[in-house]
Amino acid sequence: MEDLTTIEQLLEQIKAQKPLIHHITNSVTINDCANITLAIGASPVMADEVEEAAEMTTHAQALVINIGTLSTRTIPAMIASGEKANQKGIPVIFDPVGVGATPFRMRVAKELLETLHFSVLRGNMSEIKALAGLETHAKGVDAGDDMDDAVSIAKQLAKRYDCIVAVTGKEDIVSDGIKVATIKAGHPLLAQVSGTGCMSNSLIASFAAVTSDSFSATIAGLYAMGRSGEIAFNNLREFEGAGTFHIRLLDAISLLSSNTLLEGGRIYVHS
Amino acid sequence: MEDLTTIEQLLEQIKAQKPLIHHITNSVTINDCANITLAIGASPVMADEVEEAAEMTTHAQALVINIGTLSTRTIPAMIASGEKANQKGIPVIFDPVGVGATPFRMRVAKELLETLHFSVLRGNMSEIKALAGLETHAKGVDAGDDMDDAVSIAKQLAKRYDCIVAVTGKEDIVSDGIKVATIKAGHPLLAQVSGTGCMSNSLIASFAAVTSDSFSATIAGLYAMGRSGEIAFNNLREFEGAGTFHIRLLDAISLLSSNTLLEGGRIYVHS
Amino acid sequence: MEDLTTIEQLLEQIKAQKPLIHHITNSVTINDCANITLAIGASPVMADEVEEAAEMTTHAQALVINIGTLSTRTIPAMIASGEKANQKGIPVIFDPVGVGATPFRMRVAKELLETLHFSVLRGNMSEIKALAGLETHAKGVDAGDDMDDAVSIAKQLAKRYDCIVAVTGKEDIVSDGIKVATIKAGHPLLAQVSGTGCMSNSLIASFAAVTSDSFSATIAGLYAMGRSGEIAFNNLREFEGAGTFHIRLLDAISLLSSNTLLEGGRIYVHS
Repeated sequence: MEDLTTIEQLLEQIKAQKPLIHHITNSVTINDCANITLAIGASPVMADEVEEAAEMTTHAQALVINIGTLSTRTIPAMIASGEKANQKGIPVIFDPVGVGATPFRMRVAKELLETLHFSVLRGNMSEIKALAGLETHAKGVDAGDDMDDAVSIAKQLAKRYDCIVAVTGKEDIVSDGIKVATIKAGHPLLAQVSGTGCMSNSLIASFAAVTSDSFSATIAGLYAMGRSGEIAFNNLREFEGAGTFHIRLLDAISLLSSNTLLEGGRIYVHS
Repeated sequence: MEDLTTIEQLLEQIKAQKPLIHHITNSVTINDCANITLAIGASPVMADEVEEAAEMTTHAQALVINIGTLSTRTIPAMIASGEKANQKGIPVIFDPVGVGATPFRMRVAKELLETLHFSVLRGNMSEIKALAGLETHAKGVDAGDDMDDAVSIAKQLAKRYDCIVAVTGKEDIVSDGIKVATIKAGHPLLAQVSGTGCMSNSLIASFAAVTSDSFSATIAGLYAMGRSGEIAFNNLREFEGAGTFHIRLLDAISLLSSNTLLEGGRIYVHS
Repeated sequence: MEDLTTIEQLLEQIKAQKPLIHHITNSVTINDCANITLAIGASPVMADEVEEAAEMTTHAQALVINIGTLSTRTIPAMIASGEKANQKGIPVIFDPVGVGATPFRMRVAKELLETLHFSVLRGNMSEIKALAGLETHAKGVDAGDDMDDAVSIAKQLAKRYDCIVAVTGKEDIVSDGIKVATIKAGHPLLAQVSGTGCMSNSLIASFAAVTSDSFSATIAGLYAMGRSGEIAFNNLREFEGAGTFHIRLLDAISLLSSNTLLEGGRIYVHS
């Protein structure tokens, strides 16, 4: 994965296989998640009613669970779909949005982590620290935190939950508990668009749907998002700000190819 | 309807009358539905709480029911609003999103079709086949299927439910059970934007709100969407992909006029 | 506030303090509310589950309550968060979307107004008239009404509920019960985008989070939206319509500065 060939190959597989990505996600960014899934070449379905959630998962090649606008109504659907995904052996991506902000989110996130097996756990530093039981000065869901301890916390949580852990921020850290990848890509404007984290989940799920290597899939998804942020910024005119950047991000994902990916060398894998 | 004069006239009536279109729809594309309704010149209202749904329908000139993110919470609102619309004699458009994907969706769709009278039933080939009781290889809500049997199935369902049936895809088929219209318009990028089907419902409803001829209204709505897809594509620059196309689609609808519609001759009505 | 210095200073404070704005809002425009909050420099959080709503409010510097897609599920969360906000002394902005359209909305709006103390009540003329108990010919949520009585009704409601009342339309009226401000800014295309009212709430809340002067905060939020509508229109090309205007609006907010604000002189404060 030091070079970008793996990402290109996985991208081709997504476009060839059009995997179905089942999302149980928040109402804020649900449209962006659907559109970015289509843009990368996969197929989205959103269904959060417990009466059908597990059934819908039977058709899917990956599942995303996101607690951004968590409601008691959808928790049973998350559990049912997650269990079905685990039975089928398809990857499940978990985004513990704002987990440090309320005891309710922490309780539900812990319940999900103990009941289900996730392939990938992705959050910002505050969320990952909160899950690790560390102090954090989170305020809501877009809060930052320094990335100093990111590597050790990511490794620790990856071992505890037997999954890939991704800590996203200015730089992204990905670990399987032993190996660690650092991804240096992106643009500060990504933090001015709501849902870039949620959209990253959809990308990771799309990549994870076509490979059993969740570590590479996570790197691929995060690199695709970061690189697209750079492309999006490069195409802005002077009167274009956060609104256009958001749209250009979807443009860049939909036009992602070996040409546009080829600015690489910024993924570092070590142990 | 072989020429485009009818569509132009209906479009002027929408802009003059600004009909209120009540939507009970999914959370994925609800914003796009509101915005495309405004773009065509009508007025959207979204209300899915049973405590007020029927009351809201009393103000409306058309109703859209869409089961894209179906929940047990909103089914009673769909029934109550649908019954009110039937009493008032305003058109009801039904989109059985993903109906083949789960028994829950099929059960609810059948219940709605047996309880309410719809003016227009619009779906993709997989959805329409599933409703007709035919085998389908649907996977989720964006799945394709060949359009070979579209005409006969559309006719059959139109007779069974006494409504206009529209099967949308590369080409759109519209039937009232006897007449059939084929609409050749659109662009492949429409399949890369989530909710173009949902948005078509809003357009059909806006046209149906100003004429008692639901067959023409359905053709008008689908042609407006397809033609706008062409215009949207024509205005893209090389670095603009699915994100910008989505926005240009709304642009084209909001600027629709006799000038931009005048690329016609691609609506064929036969029996 | 006759000049624009106050707005510029408040804008700088938002960017410096990044206040957290808790929204309990509708599902139609929730994404736009999150993005415009980020665009102005504040931080959004959306949480409408009663299990955590009040807890989330403890982290916030302002709260927005919007009944656009009101459901019985979220009313207890509105009450709990509103009471917490009142205890903490942070501003609460209330948008009684479509209040005249159904008895359910009127009953809940009245309950909220009697239970909670709002800093700002913002609606269109139909909504404000309905709350004042006057006849209105509202049809749904985007309906217009003449603004003739706006000033006296705004004053009356402001006294009754001890809050700032804003009546938005072609011109915006803001009153604290004694003083009245008229804001002449904006563009007709703002009425062709769903959620410009909702987005205004987010802007007002962002300004109100950094000053105890809710009157100035309301003027600042509405002027920022109106001025951005003008900028958004000025940057449109001939084939760009409502879709692009919507995006340019977010662009203009994210690029708002003393330079772009400096077209002033159109805020008139009198008594």
